[in-house]
Amino acid sequence: MRELVEQLLAGKHRALARVISKIEDRSPGYRDLVSDLHPHTGNATIVGITGSPGAGKSTLVDKMAETYRERGETVGVIAIDPSSPYSGGAVLGDRIRMASTIGDMDVFFRSMSARGTLGGLSTATTDAVKALDAFGKDRIIIETVGAGQNEVDIVGTADTIAVLVPPSSGDDVQMLKAGILEIGDVFVVNKADLDGADRTVQELREMVHMRDASPLAGTAGHHGVDSGSAGERDPETDDSDDEAWTPPIVETVAKTGEGVEPFLETLVDHRAWLESSGELDSQRRERYEEEVRRLLREGAGELVRAEIDRHGGLDGYVEAIAAKETDPYVVTEELLAPLRGTVDD
Amino acid sequence: MRELVEQLLAGKHRALARVISKIEDRSPGYRDLVSDLHPHTGNATIVGITGSPGAGKSTLVDKMAETYRERGETVGVIAIDPSSPYSGGAVLGDRIRMASTIGDMDVFFRSMSARGTLGGLSTATTDAVKALDAFGKDRIIIETVGAGQNEVDIVGTADTIAVLVPPSSGDDVQMLKAGILEIGDVFVVNKADLDGADRTVQELREMVHMRDASPLAGTAGHHGVDSGSAGERDPETDDSDDEAWTPPIVETVAKTGEGVEPFLETLVDHRAWLESSGELDSQRRERYEEEVRRLLREGAGELVRAEIDRHGGLDGYVEAIAAKETDPYVVTEELLAPLRGTVDD
Repeated sequence: MRELVEQLLAGKHRALARVISKIEDRSPGYRDLVSDLHPHTGNATIVGITGSPGAGKSTLVDKMAETYRERGETVGVIAIDPSSPYSGGAVLGDRIRMASTIGDMDVFFRSMSARGTLGGLSTATTDAVKALDAFGKDRIIIETVGAGQNEVDIVGTADTIAVLVPPSSGDDVQMLKAGILEIGDVFVVNKADLDGADRTVQELREMVHMRDASPLAGTAGHHGVDSGSAGERDPETDDSDDEAWTPPIVETVAKTGEGVEPFLETLVDHRAWLESSGELDSQRRERYEEEVRRLLREGAGELVRAEIDRHGGLDGYVEAIAAKETDPYVVTEELLAPLRGTVDD
Repeated sequence: MRELVEQLLAGKHRALARVISKIEDRSPGYRDLVSDLHPHTGNATIVGITGSPGAGKSTLVDKMAETYRERGETVGVIAIDPSSPYSGGAVLGDRIRMASTIGDMDVFFRSMSARGTLGGLSTATTDAVKALDAFGKDRIIIETVGAGQNEVDIVGTADTIAVLVPPSSGDDVQMLKAGILEIGDVFVVNKADLDGADRTVQELREMVHMRDASPLAGTAGHHGVDSGSAGERDPETDDSDDEAWTPPIVETVAKTGEGVEPFLETLVDHRAWLESSGELDSQRRERYEEEVRRLLREGAGELVRAEIDRHGGLDGYVEAIAAKETDPYVVTEELLAPLRGTVDD
């Protein structure tokens, strides 16, 4: 195990792939692995790319990766596809093509699905990002295939989130409002060569303006300056408004690469703001706390399942409850007693 | 406490109200209370009423209660309103009127909201139904104010579920399909005096027909004959199809009471089918199992929170993780160790 970590830290892609597989499979000892990686993390920039299907996310991510590579930076991509039955290497046709075009492993691509991942997809993604970060990838991109709640939550673990919006009728921007607009640090109107792009940009601009003007502005933005410290600051006396981040709206044509450089500039700007405002640190702290709480929930759930197994399942208990010999609260107390035992003293 | 249970079992409405308040507030000792009630449960019929807002649910429930009362049967109503800030007595204007019209407490009405209930609304509803059942109410009605996923899950703890559909365009029936149509044991086209009622009845009939004809028929119906034993029976050799329940579609005008008697007949029919097919027993067993699992989850969560509190919160841990002195897995292991201790031996 320790050897595997050493190989990963030494830059062996095979070791990186094996570590991520162990994370997905929750192989025995994977926790120690991730623990060993943790001290080596914190150097990569982590960007999340989300948006409705058809917005052109994967094409944009490919172009981003290509551009970073041309600059000599290394890239890791985690594509989240909860509904796919596959996890692992480049299962998507165009991704295989991309990998062969670039001809090296410095764009390390990995897809992750709920069905291919034992346990929670959030935990697996967080840990896989750590592996990429410890490995030394300069740029890590978390890409969602769809835009379901699950995927939006996962992409939310990135430092900067770009939301892709296709050019379209006003209805669609209204629809988006409900979910993913709130989390965008940058908005990208992709396929900007299509009709309706200007209108979509305009609508997004109004939406961002309203968001900033609303009394909830501080809490509405996922990465807004106030989000990490709600309640600690008095909005009435808070004159740090000039520090707030207003999400820029950029236009790209990912297919041709048009607008990709300016888009990457906005990511650099956001990163600079995150650092200067102190948001980067407070965001990461929040994320560590959420990570611990999630691991605690998972761990407690495992303990309960082990306890149920030790009693040969719940069938006997259910029979006894139905026969009115016992009841759900007494059964629960009995099953939790071993866990409770040492807590009370 | 024991005295309170005795008063409840003796038919004191004040004791019933106090027990339900203790359940909602999770007052110390409420678990013992519910445990003491459990052996006295199992005699009431439990009906869930759901459907989109504006379908006329509360008017129908009032008429149901009135009709039962005229027959000399006692009634308990739990109205689930997750979004309301209120829990407790008859907070809705018309309900106060109803109670005064009938002039007795034998229609016991109680609303429950997520904000008014500590812990899970599902657990509180399950326990409040037990209190009404043990009290000796003949008919218990769980009514949802809206039709969100949360409310649909809760109403699913009833033995029989009636889904109300307002007369309207075909679009709406299509819309309903996604969620609540699957759980209906009886469909009620209320406001049947309005235009479009016949068409809605026809559409529901087609939908029920398709549902029965589909290969998923056994699993699609919430209370279908196969739902409790999926996997145990071979559909190819299963010739108990004549035992299956086909949801009837009834028309009512709750405001005038028209159609309410025939509707109540379908509830009696469904109950008879539940008993003769063995579904009542297997449904209740499933529900007990789900109840135990839910209580275990809640209990494990409480243990984890207590452990976090014992360490003075997570802030210190988060700082240490950020400083790379430790990592989330090590912290989780440390916090779970006391719970794990006695499980392994």
